[in-house]
Amino acid sequence: MDIKYPKGATLTASSSAAAKRPTIFGDRGMTLEQEINESNTYYRKQNLAVIYKKPTPIQIVKVDYPKRSRAVIREAYFRQASTTDYNGVYQGYYIDFEAKETRHKRSFPLSNFHEHQIQHLANCLQQQGICFAIIKFVTLQRYFVLPAAVLIDFWQKASHGGQKSLPLHFIETNSFEIKAGYNPILPYLDICRQLIKLTGEHHG
Amino acid sequence: MDIKYPKGATLTASSSAAAKRPTIFGDRGMTLEQEINESNTYYRKQNLAVIYKKPTPIQIVKVDYPKRSRAVIREAYFRQASTTDYNGVYQGYYIDFEAKETRHKRSFPLSNFHEHQIQHLANCLQQQGICFAIIKFVTLQRYFVLPAAVLIDFWQKASHGGQKSLPLHFIETNSFEIKAGYNPILPYLDICRQLIKLTGEHHG
Repeated sequence: MDIKYPKGATLTASSSAAAKRPTIFGDRGMTLEQEINESNTYYRKQNLAVIYKKPTPIQIVKVDYPKRSRAVIREAYFRQASTTDYNGVYQGYYIDFEAKETRHKRSFPLSNFHEHQIQHLANCLQQQGICFAIIKFVTLQRYFVLPAAVLIDFWQKASHGGQKSLPLHFIETNSFEIKAGYNPILPYLDICRQLIKLTGEHHG
Repeated sequence: MDIKYPKGATLTASSSAAAKRPTIFGDRGMTLEQEINESNTYYRKQNLAVIYKKPTPIQIVKVDYPKRSRAVIREAYFRQASTTDYNGVYQGYYIDFEAKETRHKRSFPLSNFHEHQIQHLANCLQQQGICFAIIKFVTLQRYFVLPAAVLIDFWQKASHGGQKSLPLHFIETNSFEIKAGYNPILPYLDICRQLIKLTGEHHG
């Protein structure tokens, strides 16, 4: 493109962006999964919440049992998970979420989710869980907590001919942005507190 | 032994036992894990609760990517889980438990549990989860839901020189017995309801 920038404009624009987000400790080449795992470790150590990533489901076909040595899996296959990747408990509330990242800049393609993940979120929501997706725009270095109800609604419209991608402006309007920090890297529990207030569920 | 039974007594005794427990559909050679998984499937289909067994954690060392075929794991090892095996959500409550079976008849050895499982239950309990162990006496064909608080307390006493095995009479007194049924095979959600009432936790 042939746009003539005023002298120094590029530099100014970039310093201005840096000024807006002075503390990006998150993505030093970490994946979203690593960032969430580190945040969960922090939350557990601080006794704030007990949330784990579930192990990857594996279909084991062949195992060797060598003498004087531990069992070795010699043939196994990755299976598709029937649930989301993360769940746990925070002050009595059941927390359940999926985490996805994209290099897209303007929208988040729904194809990143699987039907059964959406179904699982809907099932947990029906059981009054606190359910959401954490979406990371890698290139933009931005993180959003999208409530499951919003995602499910968008998904259902898409399956009836609606948009197949969540536009960034839709996400900006309908979710909670998280600023990456230091401890924890992704303070998504702050958003859980807000979601709990919003749902206003009472037990007893 | 040389006990002389009155004529027909054996038959009577066995019919009497059958009358007491007329519907043992549980252990037709099923493991406790299978019984719980089938119960969880039932609960999910009936929209009563969303509870899953977590996948076994595997450390993957070598993966082959054959052409035109899916990835094959060629070397992997079993890792020890850092949590319990089961968790999920029931009417807004976080449910977390471990399941263990024994062929012992008079007591349940604590060595069936790992330190980190007890620690995980304690952590979840602190976050107001509904936490317990399901214990199956395979030979006796009896199932118990032991509240996590009782298990943790017994564990701590054991580590200070107390008994290393939960006596059956202790379990009978301090837990909830479940009768195996048909749908679900193990109606442990009934006990969850009682545990929720007992803890009397309120959210809001």
